Amino acid sequence: MTLAERVLDGDIRAAARLMRDIDDRFKSAIEELKTLYPHTGNAYIIGITGPPGAGKSTLVDQIVSAYRKKDLLVGVVAIDPTSPFSGGAILGDRIRMNRHADDAGVFIRSLATRGALGGLSRSTTDVVNVMDAMGMDVIVIETVGVGQDEVDIVSTAHTTVVVMVPGLGDDIQAIKAGILEIGDVFVVNKADRDGAERTARELTTMLEMKHPDADGWAPRVLQTEGARGVGIEELVQEFDAHHIYLKESGALQRLIEERNAKLFADTLREELFETVFGAIKGNGKYDEIVAGMRDKSMDPYSAVQEVMAGRAFS
Amino acid sequence: MTLAERVLDGDIRAAARLMRDIDDRFKSAIEELKTLYPHTGNAYIIGITGPPGAGKSTLVDQIVSAYRKKDLLVGVVAIDPTSPFSGGAILGDRIRMNRHADDAGVFIRSLATRGALGGLSRSTTDVVNVMDAMGMDVIVIETVGVGQDEVDIVSTAHTTVVVMVPGLGDDIQAIKAGILEIGDVFVVNKADRDGAERTARELTTMLEMKHPDADGWAPRVLQTEGARGVGIEELVQEFDAHHIYLKESGALQRLIEERNAKLFADTLREELFETVFGAIKGNGKYDEIVAGMRDKSMDPYSAVQEVMAGRAFS
Repeated sequence: MTLAERVLDGDIRAAARLMRDIDDRFKSAIEELKTLYPHTGNAYIIGITGPPGAGKSTLVDQIVSAYRKKDLLVGVVAIDPTSPFSGGAILGDRIRMNRHADDAGVFIRSLATRGALGGLSRSTTDVVNVMDAMGMDVIVIETVGVGQDEVDIVSTAHTTVVVMVPGLGDDIQAIKAGILEIGDVFVVNKADRDGAERTARELTTMLEMKHPDADGWAPRVLQTEGARGVGIEELVQEFDAHHIYLKESGALQRLIEERNAKLFADTLREELFETVFGAIKGNGKYDEIVAGMRDKSMDPYSAVQEVMAGRAFS
Repeated sequence: MTLAERVLDGDIRAAARLMRDIDDRFKSAIEELKTLYPHTGNAYIIGITGPPGAGKSTLVDQIVSAYRKKDLLVGVVAIDPTSPFSGGAILGDRIRMNRHADDAGVFIRSLATRGALGGLSRSTTDVVNVMDAMGMDVIVIETVGVGQDEVDIVSTAHTTVVVMVPGLGDDIQAIKAGILEIGDVFVVNKADRDGAERTARELTTMLEMKHPDADGWAPRVLQTEGARGVGIEELVQEFDAHHIYLKESGALQRLIEERNAKLFADTLREELFETVFGAIKGNGKYDEIVAGMRDKSMDPYSAVQEVMAGRAFS
């Protein structure tokens, strides 16, 4: 049996192996992903983001437990970029949600891909597709960082969850200003802390101003205490409500198509670059360009024009 | 006179106009950048990063004043990504450092580019090159976000400054773990706050463990109070020391070459993608691919292979 066939049978080892092959960019992995593609599009994908210290991992842990109680299979993709401010990659799978470690119904994968721009987004979609094809009912994508990359990734989910905490300091107004656009569900976590009510109320007011006559989905603000499991049931009910809304409004199909279009574009961008860059490295042109930029007989813009005119499309 | 010639004459309006043209991706801007390129490589570039709330803008403001006192021309590039957690783009140039607004020796530019991956990094380098060519002695790049993109940008500076504050909460250990690699200078800002000494001491210890026998540059931890200007003189002295180290060790030349190589690669990546993507949108192939992915007769990976084989290199 091919790896893909074993993945379709729900073989967790095969899935883990394929994900490693994806990381290593084995050509064979692309062939397996092709086989899996027609079997994707069934999982419900939740993206969770928020600033460091918001307690996202604990919350994810609770969400996983809630879905497991419903006997659903759950995949978790934890994005641990090598951002110097997240430090996430250090945490890794080891200490992450170890109480689910023995549960065959939970599949956890950390991604710390770095390097080519767009690489993280692409790897995430690939890994989500593997989990989707292997039959996971719910897939949770959790980002640690708070940069543009992480937001782009989370935005490819079906339901985007923004986790806040009370008392983030002076920046709270600035921080809030931009998040209203991306969240389908807002969570004020650590709701036992001082100021939780106020943070929730302010967020609610801002959302109401933003969506005054929403006849579609009107995002709500929920309060949770991840560490004690308080508010998780309501949170999962809100996810269910949003999932139903997406299906009935046709928005889900649109989201799925956007994700695939983005995967196509990201993959195309990297393949084009790698092919052409590989070619000019191989034939000495790149060294020539670098030397020219050094003595300023060449500039980066002219170099690109030369490559575009001469090599890529001759 | 061309825009580029006016920029070389130090014409601030021409520089502002060229930067707008760069934002708008006018083809003409590329030609101007080509003309400017041989005049770049003279400015000293400082990159400042750190989590939201660390007081970076106030610190930059003080650094600008310190260099102005030395009669140096200062450019500031403020990266305001449209990240939902920075909210930076809302701040913009308007309220940013308005006390330098009437100083012709200070040129401030906010960048909030979004969209194509790598776009922000590329625009930043383009804008820095314009400021460099127009004769700015020092250019400060400030990022608001803390994601991979922002770090990549700051890392293209000659001196990378990491700003921390006491009391960032539970995540402080995790946050610290990754930052040691990128900083040339560490600043504990808001040093009048409780815990500043401890934060500085912990950082110093971690840096000493990391660089036990550094015969090159050993990053130090400085304390500042940006709001009151405390510690700024020492900070700027540290920048001078690092700049001298870079010049004498030959590392500066290497950094300049790496920046140019990255600009070339980023520009090539986007040009390749835009050209090929434009072509398949124009001839109907893209619509065909999207339709195929929808009914699952096509998958994103095969679509890329088809485009790579059939169009780009035929």
